Amino acid sequence: MKKVAVILGSDSDLPVVKGCIEKLKSFDIPYEAHVMSAHRTPDAAGAFAEAAEKNGFGVIIAAAGKAAHLAGALAARTALPVIGIPIKSSTLDGLDALLSTVQMPSGVPVATVAINGAENAAILAAQILALSDEGLSKKLLEMKKQMADSVKAKDEKLQAEVQKL
Amino acid sequence: MKKVAVILGSDSDLPVVKGCIEKLKSFDIPYEAHVMSAHRTPDAAGAFAEAAEKNGFGVIIAAAGKAAHLAGALAARTALPVIGIPIKSSTLDGLDALLSTVQMPSGVPVATVAINGAENAAILAAQILALSDEGLSKKLLEMKKQMADSVKAKDEKLQAEVQKL
Amino acid sequence: MKKVAVILGSDSDLPVVKGCIEKLKSFDIPYEAHVMSAHRTPDAAGAFAEAAEKNGFGVIIAAAGKAAHLAGALAARTALPVIGIPIKSSTLDGLDALLSTVQMPSGVPVATVAINGAENAAILAAQILALSDEGLSKKLLEMKKQMADSVKAKDEKLQAEVQKL
Amino acid sequence: MKKVAVILGSDSDLPVVKGCIEKLKSFDIPYEAHVMSAHRTPDAAGAFAEAAEKNGFGVIIAAAGKAAHLAGALAARTALPVIGIPIKSSTLDGLDALLSTVQMPSGVPVATVAINGAENAAILAAQILALSDEGLSKKLLEMKKQMADSVKAKDEKLQAEVQKL
Amino acid sequence: MKKVAVILGSDSDLPVVKGCIEKLKSFDIPYEAHVMSAHRTPDAAGAFAEAAEKNGFGVIIAAAGKAAHLAGALAARTALPVIGIPIKSSTLDGLDALLSTVQMPSGVPVATVAINGAENAAILAAQILALSDEGLSKKLLEMKKQMADSVKAKDEKLQAEVQKL
Amino acid sequence: MKKVAVILGSDSDLPVVKGCIEKLKSFDIPYEAHVMSAHRTPDAAGAFAEAAEKNGFGVIIAAAGKAAHLAGALAARTALPVIGIPIKSSTLDGLDALLSTVQMPSGVPVATVAINGAENAAILAAQILALSDEGLSKKLLEMKKQMADSVKAKDEKLQAEVQKL
Amino acid sequence: MKKVAVILGSDSDLPVVKGCIEKLKSFDIPYEAHVMSAHRTPDAAGAFAEAAEKNGFGVIIAAAGKAAHLAGALAARTALPVIGIPIKSSTLDGLDALLSTVQMPSGVPVATVAINGAENAAILAAQILALSDEGLSKKLLEMKKQMADSVKAKDEKLQAEVQKL
Amino acid sequence: MKKVAVILGSDSDLPVVKGCIEKLKSFDIPYEAHVMSAHRTPDAAGAFAEAAEKNGFGVIIAAAGKAAHLAGALAARTALPVIGIPIKSSTLDGLDALLSTVQMPSGVPVATVAINGAENAAILAAQILALSDEGLSKKLLEMKKQMADSVKAKDEKLQAEVQKL
Repeated sequence: MKKVAVILGSDSDLPVVKGCIEKLKSFDIPYEAHVMSAHRTPDAAGAFAEAAEKNGFGVIIAAAGKAAHLAGALAARTALPVIGIPIKSSTLDGLDALLSTVQMPSGVPVATVAINGAENAAILAAQILALSDEGLSKKLLEMKKQMADSVKAKDEKLQAEVQKL
Repeated sequence: MKKVAVILGSDSDLPVVKGCIEKLKSFDIPYEAHVMSAHRTPDAAGAFAEAAEKNGFGVIIAAAGKAAHLAGALAARTALPVIGIPIKSSTLDGLDALLSTVQMPSGVPVATVAINGAENAAILAAQILALSDEGLSKKLLEMKKQMADSVKAKDEKLQAEVQKL
Repeated sequence: MKKVAVILGSDSDLPVVKGCIEKLKSFDIPYEAHVMSAHRTPDAAGAFAEAAEKNGFGVIIAAAGKAAHLAGALAARTALPVIGIPIKSSTLDGLDALLSTVQMPSGVPVATVAINGAENAAILAAQILALSDEGLSKKLLEMKKQMADSVKAKDEKLQAEVQKL
Repeated sequence: MKKVAVILGSDSDLPVVKGCIEKLKSFDIPYEAHVMSAHRTPDAAGAFAEAAEKNGFGVIIAAAGKAAHLAGALAARTALPVIGIPIKSSTLDGLDALLSTVQMPSGVPVATVAINGAENAAILAAQILALSDEGLSKKLLEMKKQMADSVKAKDEKLQAEVQKL
Repeated sequence: MKKVAVILGSDSDLPVVKGCIEKLKSFDIPYEAHVMSAHRTPDAAGAFAEAAEKNGFGVIIAAAGKAAHLAGALAARTALPVIGIPIKSSTLDGLDALLSTVQMPSGVPVATVAINGAENAAILAAQILALSDEGLSKKLLEMKKQMADSVKAKDEKLQAEVQKL
Repeated sequence: MKKVAVILGSDSDLPVVKGCIEKLKSFDIPYEAHVMSAHRTPDAAGAFAEAAEKNGFGVIIAAAGKAAHLAGALAARTALPVIGIPIKSSTLDGLDALLSTVQMPSGVPVATVAINGAENAAILAAQILALSDEGLSKKLLEMKKQMADSVKAKDEKLQAEVQKL
Repeated sequence: MKKVAVILGSDSDLPVVKGCIEKLKSFDIPYEAHVMSAHRTPDAAGAFAEAAEKNGFGVIIAAAGKAAHLAGALAARTALPVIGIPIKSSTLDGLDALLSTVQMPSGVPVATVAINGAENAAILAAQILALSDEGLSKKLLEMKKQMADSVKAKDEKLQAEVQKL
Repeated sequence: MKKVAVILGSDSDLPVVKGCIEKLKSFDIPYEAHVMSAHRTPDAAGAFAEAAEKNGFGVIIAAAGKAAHLAGALAARTALPVIGIPIKSSTLDGLDALLSTVQMPSGVPVATVAINGAENAAILAAQILALSDEGLSKKLLEMKKQMADSVKAKDEKLQAEVQKL
């Protein structure tokens, strides 16, 4: 299976992004995680994106906050699908990162998930890779079933809680 | 190659979404386009999503405005990657559609592109399908090169225009 | 009297939504509460809405955060009045849920109350049911009177507090 | 059947609100329409709301722009369900009217529809009145069916248009 | 001197509004403070506003959060200047209260100060009353001078702190 | 009677601000209008504000767009009440001017009216001056009555229009 | 004198950016203008920024819309001051470009001017270069004087216009 | 070398602004720090700006929150480059300060950095002064290299942390 790259714009994003990495692990998807910055290490980030396909990556996930250029900077240098996770930082509640990630100009898309939506970035990567991997496709369907079962269990548990109100 | 489904929440979205369809055509990607509404034809939309994988689709693109639930409603019923195009409508400049499309809960991602970013939805779909289609991958790299050439041509043209200022 | 359905998109919404349930209880309005998700259990949610009228419900209240599709998804499958409570989540202060709930397309309204306005959802449901229930109507007028009395009591209490400033 | 009151904060709102009135007419719902202002004719508006139930009204619809207090001012003086239509005016794209209408304090709900969502206000009123009027209930289900049929017709028409792209 | 009325939409606004009351006291401006609600006690609020001029008031200050209608509701029933303090509540950071207070329709102004700007409401009321009260005018000029002196003292103190950085 | 100063940050604001000037004229309030800029003529603006009280002004109205500092800059140099009109310019729909005008720090209030609320600025100035001018007070009450009569006339006219829908 | 580089993310930005170029010309500041894209020609843009100092540039001005990464991408590869002009595009009124330009992470500043503030970008560049160019410094002071004179002329003209109101 | 002035609108901004002062110190840039207010000490602030060039300053940095007029007020009275730091205060998450600082009218630019971007203000000032100071230019390039090295070190550290997930 092709690998997924998880690029953090800053190591301070790890508490959010680890939800992404754990989800990839739960799908047994091979991955590499890196701290690379569009603004502080543009060469390293650019070189990584340019070599990503050749190096066996199928999807790149990039997480960044504020003027979140990382996903777009990587997408500028690869034709692989790039998923962007806008990170909420200390001001503006993540709106800056969301707009900086999603409002890409025509020609260079970034597949943007919710603010701090790290887990969904992993699931989206899995959905993409599952197009040519039947085993992964089954895991995704199984996960969907488990989510539904979990909601049903919570519904039953709610009945008891509601009695106490 | 797997097909791409392009679902419009309303036929009034066609002027924007045709940029997506034309781009898919330019890549020779097989596609189907439909008008289906999460709110007016939930059964048809749900049935389409549930059968999409079996019917040969690899990616679903959904375009909708205002409380844009269409992409999320389709994503709820398939494990295929779903791309959402938030459509700008008569109020709030597309912010409502953007937030309704991108802020999906954990477990059910929608790969969101820019407001009215129809062409980018097609390119993202192509990037996803290109993971298992070398010919499409080459077309994407060629498109990237043409974009760069076009910018360079515009740069040259600018030199003449600037003289006249 | 017809029943009110209170649907939570997630069990984590209960701390807010219990204000709604307690208010319904205070009016002696029969209700059922469920955890159902537009995205994780779309079948269950859809089936519930479609059968709601037949099953004796008169009003459906739906609470959800982020890309809050739940109220709209239920409204798509019933002609009963559906009340939406946008839930504030960890980012964007509830604006995403508000816009996702209220900006419904023509044909499928959701009666939206304030962000986290759980109690008001119950009162609105009561106002709707009171149109054909004189006893409930009297309770609502009584509640209005008590609210006014409570404000007047607070006004009197303020006079003492102001002396100390 | 109880009547619906349609209150316009300004006669300049009529181009939007006539969509509401026409929809009420299409359902054969008796109604009265008035121009009344929370700020310019507070007495008239207050008196109307206080006498509304006695005068045979079942639902009040209020449309207003900017600091849209009208729906809330009416809701303060009646226990009938009050539906608010936030009107987009010359600045802020209707966000001011939306927040002024929907963010009501606990105890006094306003059932808010989308910005300029006049037609949906009528449908919501019909849904409320239909709880005790089987004929109206049937009309609503019929409308839902026609909406679905209309979407399906548009889907078919799209197939022809797509060929030409 | 004419009195200033300070009206709180809710007693929970007192922690903010006491800054207003203390400032009025520091100017020796006679005042009354009341809890009155546009939505819960519309009659009391309306009656207060209508009688305010006759009862010796010169300025009305109204503080309210969320869909903050209080200042506008009072302004609808008096020709006295009405000052609005938008109160920040649990969601939307006060933006809802600001827009609900300031975006008044033509004919009925509310003199709006900053979100939670309680002290400034008192100063503005003093500026208004000082037009016909030379003593108060002098106090305002003295306050301005003290503010300037205080800033200069802070500037001097900063020099010491900066040495330690 | 004291004069009202109407200060325009730019002569391009005149189409909006003339509503203010005409309203002052309708009340027979003496006024002066000036173009002065907080950023381009800070000396002239500052000198005007500092001398305003001595020169017979009672209220200053300032209109400005974008980073609308004019009202605040004048308020910094006078203890007269300063009314700010945020002007909508080519971007951000006036939100920038509103926040720049209203969010003043403690100690220096600006009485802010709605975006482009020029007429209300005049009415607010009249309300302030009317505290010591019984004739003006009567004009304001008369204006309020005329507004109410006008709304009632529009209500009657609406009855005819509604018949045609 | 060092040169100023004016980089347009798209040739469609020229109608706005020409205000910048004309202002530079009016100061006789040597400049080059280029179309270069952070996303479509990242190599060309990066190479330009890296060589800019060596090639005789003192300031770089970058104009871009939507997810406006251009200024930040250039700033990542030079220690020259980089000025960003956020361009208003078809949605969100320029807020996306503003936040994408200004919210840069610590270590890599972009000197951001107003949305579409092309002329101010040129003036800021002139102010920077004037620190080591007395002639340019005089031109800036002269421009400031002319602006003030122009405002005063408009003030005089206003007196005539006001008479006609 | 020319000095940098760091002006705080309030001493309460020091916890943020000290990041700016420390950065200036790390570059050995001579500076002065002052508390001066556009609204409370307009004379002092104006006099400072007017004399700044003569007093040996090359760049002015101004930090302010809410209706942040300080940077603009200084820029009105000098032709030196003025850098604005919008400070996040208790409401609106700094959006008010950002818009009040950046949306300056044509003719009077403020070089705006991110909300609370104090360190970047210092770096931008250094970049400006480095145009005529080779030693400072080298320090900036060294800082850029250290930033890149730091990111690379964090990338290596991440590899270990990821193993533990």
